[in-house]
Amino acid sequence: MAGNSIGQLFKVTTFGESHGPAIGGIVDGCPPGMRLTAEDLQLDLDRRKPGTSRYTTARREEDLVKILSGVFEDTTTGASIGLLIDNTDQRSQDYSNIKEVFRPGHADYTYWHKFGIRDYRGGGRSSARETAVRVAAGAIAKKYLKEHCGIEIRGYLAQLGPVKAEKLLWDEVQNNPFFCPDPDKLAALDEYMRQLKKDGDSVGARVNVVATNVPVGLGEPVFDRLDADIAHAMMSINAVKAVEIGDGFAVVEQRGSTDRDELTPDGFNSNHAGGTLGGISSGQDIKVSMALKPTSSISIPGKSINVHGEVIEVVTKGRHDPCVGIRAVPIAEAMLAIVLMDHLLRHRAQNAGVSVNTPDIARVGK
Amino acid sequence: MAGNSIGQLFKVTTFGESHGPAIGGIVDGCPPGMRLTAEDLQLDLDRRKPGTSRYTTARREEDLVKILSGVFEDTTTGASIGLLIDNTDQRSQDYSNIKEVFRPGHADYTYWHKFGIRDYRGGGRSSARETAVRVAAGAIAKKYLKEHCGIEIRGYLAQLGPVKAEKLLWDEVQNNPFFCPDPDKLAALDEYMRQLKKDGDSVGARVNVVATNVPVGLGEPVFDRLDADIAHAMMSINAVKAVEIGDGFAVVEQRGSTDRDELTPDGFNSNHAGGTLGGISSGQDIKVSMALKPTSSISIPGKSINVHGEVIEVVTKGRHDPCVGIRAVPIAEAMLAIVLMDHLLRHRAQNAGVSVNTPDIARVGK
Amino acid sequence: MAGNSIGQLFKVTTFGESHGPAIGGIVDGCPPGMRLTAEDLQLDLDRRKPGTSRYTTARREEDLVKILSGVFEDTTTGASIGLLIDNTDQRSQDYSNIKEVFRPGHADYTYWHKFGIRDYRGGGRSSARETAVRVAAGAIAKKYLKEHCGIEIRGYLAQLGPVKAEKLLWDEVQNNPFFCPDPDKLAALDEYMRQLKKDGDSVGARVNVVATNVPVGLGEPVFDRLDADIAHAMMSINAVKAVEIGDGFAVVEQRGSTDRDELTPDGFNSNHAGGTLGGISSGQDIKVSMALKPTSSISIPGKSINVHGEVIEVVTKGRHDPCVGIRAVPIAEAMLAIVLMDHLLRHRAQNAGVSVNTPDIARVGK
Amino acid sequence: MAGNSIGQLFKVTTFGESHGPAIGGIVDGCPPGMRLTAEDLQLDLDRRKPGTSRYTTARREEDLVKILSGVFEDTTTGASIGLLIDNTDQRSQDYSNIKEVFRPGHADYTYWHKFGIRDYRGGGRSSARETAVRVAAGAIAKKYLKEHCGIEIRGYLAQLGPVKAEKLLWDEVQNNPFFCPDPDKLAALDEYMRQLKKDGDSVGARVNVVATNVPVGLGEPVFDRLDADIAHAMMSINAVKAVEIGDGFAVVEQRGSTDRDELTPDGFNSNHAGGTLGGISSGQDIKVSMALKPTSSISIPGKSINVHGEVIEVVTKGRHDPCVGIRAVPIAEAMLAIVLMDHLLRHRAQNAGVSVNTPDIARVGK
Repeated sequence: MAGNSIGQLFKVTTFGESHGPAIGGIVDGCPPGMRLTAEDLQLDLDRRKPGTSRYTTARREEDLVKILSGVFEDTTTGASIGLLIDNTDQRSQDYSNIKEVFRPGHADYTYWHKFGIRDYRGGGRSSARETAVRVAAGAIAKKYLKEHCGIEIRGYLAQLGPVKAEKLLWDEVQNNPFFCPDPDKLAALDEYMRQLKKDGDSVGARVNVVATNVPVGLGEPVFDRLDADIAHAMMSINAVKAVEIGDGFAVVEQRGSTDRDELTPDGFNSNHAGGTLGGISSGQDIKVSMALKPTSSISIPGKSINVHGEVIEVVTKGRHDPCVGIRAVPIAEAMLAIVLMDHLLRHRAQNAGVSVNTPDIARVGK
Repeated sequence: MAGNSIGQLFKVTTFGESHGPAIGGIVDGCPPGMRLTAEDLQLDLDRRKPGTSRYTTARREEDLVKILSGVFEDTTTGASIGLLIDNTDQRSQDYSNIKEVFRPGHADYTYWHKFGIRDYRGGGRSSARETAVRVAAGAIAKKYLKEHCGIEIRGYLAQLGPVKAEKLLWDEVQNNPFFCPDPDKLAALDEYMRQLKKDGDSVGARVNVVATNVPVGLGEPVFDRLDADIAHAMMSINAVKAVEIGDGFAVVEQRGSTDRDELTPDGFNSNHAGGTLGGISSGQDIKVSMALKPTSSISIPGKSINVHGEVIEVVTKGRHDPCVGIRAVPIAEAMLAIVLMDHLLRHRAQNAGVSVNTPDIARVGK
Repeated sequence: MAGNSIGQLFKVTTFGESHGPAIGGIVDGCPPGMRLTAEDLQLDLDRRKPGTSRYTTARREEDLVKILSGVFEDTTTGASIGLLIDNTDQRSQDYSNIKEVFRPGHADYTYWHKFGIRDYRGGGRSSARETAVRVAAGAIAKKYLKEHCGIEIRGYLAQLGPVKAEKLLWDEVQNNPFFCPDPDKLAALDEYMRQLKKDGDSVGARVNVVATNVPVGLGEPVFDRLDADIAHAMMSINAVKAVEIGDGFAVVEQRGSTDRDELTPDGFNSNHAGGTLGGISSGQDIKVSMALKPTSSISIPGKSINVHGEVIEVVTKGRHDPCVGIRAVPIAEAMLAIVLMDHLLRHRAQNAGVSVNTPDIARVGK
Repeated sequence: MAGNSIGQLFKVTTFGESHGPAIGGIVDGCPPGMRLTAEDLQLDLDRRKPGTSRYTTARREEDLVKILSGVFEDTTTGASIGLLIDNTDQRSQDYSNIKEVFRPGHADYTYWHKFGIRDYRGGGRSSARETAVRVAAGAIAKKYLKEHCGIEIRGYLAQLGPVKAEKLLWDEVQNNPFFCPDPDKLAALDEYMRQLKKDGDSVGARVNVVATNVPVGLGEPVFDRLDADIAHAMMSINAVKAVEIGDGFAVVEQRGSTDRDELTPDGFNSNHAGGTLGGISSGQDIKVSMALKPTSSISIPGKSINVHGEVIEVVTKGRHDPCVGIRAVPIAEAMLAIVLMDHLLRHRAQNAGVSVNTPDIARVGK
């Protein structure tokens, strides 16, 4: 496959640059018979939308998605679903000064060497703008997974710079612009962000996403393990530099006697594994954590070179995020949904007839 | 694609269980004209081989690989390369007691639910035995990358349990059975492992792998970013629970002013990114780090259930690794090689004619 | 891959139904640096457009294509290219009477059984409307193949019902609405079509397409032979029921002494093979021929059943083609272009460095 | 995908040259729980085996297949199935004289140009030897389709040179070495073949293959139509130059009023379509016909050039087929089985829950 697609059976292909007329995508493989309207997708798009808080970017996009195909009388037909989102607030003039400049920390330099040409406006295809389409596609997957399997996918901000959430109250996540699940940290986050904007700098973040009620059996050994595909999907999000499943790096110092999750007739005794065993879902919550690096587009000048190899200084004016991590939450949810959807269909394909007498212990009592 | 393949253009497909007659694979897409013999592959296989040190598993496999096709007069022809490794030391009798048992921390439970059947001997397809084929396939990729691009891929043990390597002396890695680059830690590792074996327990590890001299431009935005495919490849290795590129999770608390690697005519000023920018190689060293969980097969009894859902206790006798991380080093190298090889070919396909005047600054002076 | 994509490296994914708001697609993998505007695509779209002659369908679509991404300052960037064509002349009211009806010879019955739902308006996704996107995508491939390799791809109507073209005058093809290369047959075609419309019936056709100046070496043994992929691409066009390469079915009665194309330093002595040898292009003209069945949407009543299994009669009113073969010519060209483009990139990927002293005998003297 | 694989969910990857130590393959995606032994595969392999009649090639291979993985206690586990067939009768010395020669009609010339190297012994990878693995893989698919859906796949020789079968008596196919269903033609075939061998020439053939009892609904519009994938699979067989579905080229002169298969509550009134509608199986018999060109390896001298571009004469000594079509029958069956298997799994993936009240009219009364 070329690089602009993800998934085998639930396949999402996207197009669109930061400053083109529109961005969009095609979702291929969605099962027929599910009710679907643009409103179902708009909800998650609005959560991701730039301009929704005073902390994130000042670019104000409507991000209104249109469904162009694959749906008839508000029901999916099984045909490919075309999605379109017009770009309405590009402001090309903001970028003319970087036409020949490689902004440090951005893809300008690598795109130039790889393609010999680059759309320098707002990062072109390397811009996080394309993630809007992922969110729309992910919303389709989320809906199906919810309705057919009862799967819930929810993300939150676990840490922003030095500020860590210490409580996990799901209901709080929607109540603040940080997607923070710990109400006691909001003031600290607010203060930190103000200082960041004053400093003209940015900081990284840690975002977690959890899928509950996942049936046992999803994942395709040995290479398309569920966790491997999850890692791929998360690492494909702009700015992600690390991915953990379950206890992640903590397992380095763990003993086997601690790490292995014991099984009982009433469920597992722990979930160090984070929901996968041998690359297949165990029925336990799938827990993913990722690190997002700080945006490189900051007011503080940085050294770089231009296309001629000359030394230059780079200062980013215009509209930018002091912390991209904040907006990654709905994107990470979308990616997890897309991966689970793909694996659900792949599992059905090969193992539709499988049935065992052993109880799905993660489901006992639920 | 079904789950037993990885890669688009340099595609590796494998087969084989722990206790079947043989394991093997097919490497499809290797360019023609490269000299290749079984000896070229045996070197890395020997590094991975069980029984090479008193610490790792007691299973003694020859792991002699045979090349069955795709090579003529010791030169690759461009045809698919068939690889075969006979299993010679299975000892089936070691596993009959776990026929109906789900070993905690292993894939027994999930394979059972997914497939309705499982080869219980040694974990069947979920066994790390299949990684031998990955290493053989990876050796083909390594050779090509070395000869055609001068790329070197080397891994090492960064941490085992609480013992961290503090120096990185590449030449030391080959000199001890731990792949440890810090000679001052060997005694501590040795002591720790002895204690581990006495306790009948196991511990996790952190393995790093680095690719040097990678040309700028490898990676396929937006989903098949080089780092995304690397994360996928590493997470597909048994026991891996986390993957980092460059500074990894450290970026969470980093400022943008620090994290972004500035460019100068003589090279980058830093490598927080770990070798990729916008998902494309920058020419800098690609730095990957991963966490491997401790083996769940230990002498210490663990609680579990059997296929009937009854409570049982599990004790692993027989031959097992107190630390699987040690053997993951050559596997991680192989996976990185396979990913880079695939991306090299993908880059050639679309961008063969691209040429820019801007210097590849990571190559200046080298 | 899901069914709405074709190609590995030059990948075309489409969406859109006959009566949705728009049809479109994404072309992924186009090399960067090629000049490309919507006008380049419009030419071939206009050749395919319904309503361009009094013989074909009366539906009048503008078929104006928009390029939404992947092009910057009229030059391809290497990013995915989004294409959009608005549907402007749907006339939904024509189809309400077939809401529960399975039109014989159409996909209504099979779509119903497969998906449990169908967009009955104009055939929904099964409509030939989606081929407009193929033509747009094919135009991109055609341009690249022409500019980079000098490849020309041209199709023509070889036979319509009983009327066979007996001369092949390429310049004539553009001069009549039949794409017929034999000016002496135009009157017969005209007469035949008039009679067909009077009878309220339809007829099949044979369409040929030829690629000249194809470099030797394209095709990926053993399954993705060039001719196998060509057959796939042509058979994927609505109404195609057969595909031949070179002498096609004539080889059944040929002797080996005749059929094999002898090689000389100045070229091949014949081209029974039609341009491929062992599934790889030989450098000779690639000759493809296909059969298109007659449209099943005719005025003559037909027997069928409805979704309840009841006997009904079906009469197609509204706008329909008495011979779909006429419009298949630009579509067949587009498909051949897409396949050759994909194979050009695949060949480059694996065999970029290959160079032999043996002359490309098909190129001698050209 | 690289060229040595076919299928998305039931994926077959092969390796092996004519004169290498072995040929083999990996079948990935076979559902678990099916009984499978090497004997199940050997049956079809024996039908294909060279040396089974005095007419076909004199090479005598045992073609004994071994199953190396993916089966436990004679039951498929869902893991990849490794297949191996040793080459036992290579006779390398037969080919040393063609080391620098391009045999006309063979892939020598194109392989040389594409790869810059070729295994000249027996055609290397271009040899029909690799089809043995296809037959083994196809046997797995055949078994599953038979046991789970009642699908039967049978092929026969429809025509050899000028001799056409005029009756279709399925039971006769197994009773003669030609796979001919018309006992009245055996004498003519025998006589024709004797004359062919005396002439030192070869002739082409037409092979048909039929699948009965195919469920309605298999096929993935728009590009992976069932018929498109069938055409691809058949055209990928060495020597195939044309493929027809249903009435094939006869549709060119058919009227729509004749061609469209009318539906009644008791079944279709005809099967001009050959079993697919809109690229999806209709439930009717799937009828495929293909043309195989005559072998180019004949005693009659042919003109050609060598790798230096010099004029030479080529005479094939050694063991060759005067009509390769005879052996293509089991290969065509295998390919149809592989395609149907892949589509069965793909259909399950997306449409598992679909259920309509409309009867499957092709199944009424059966």
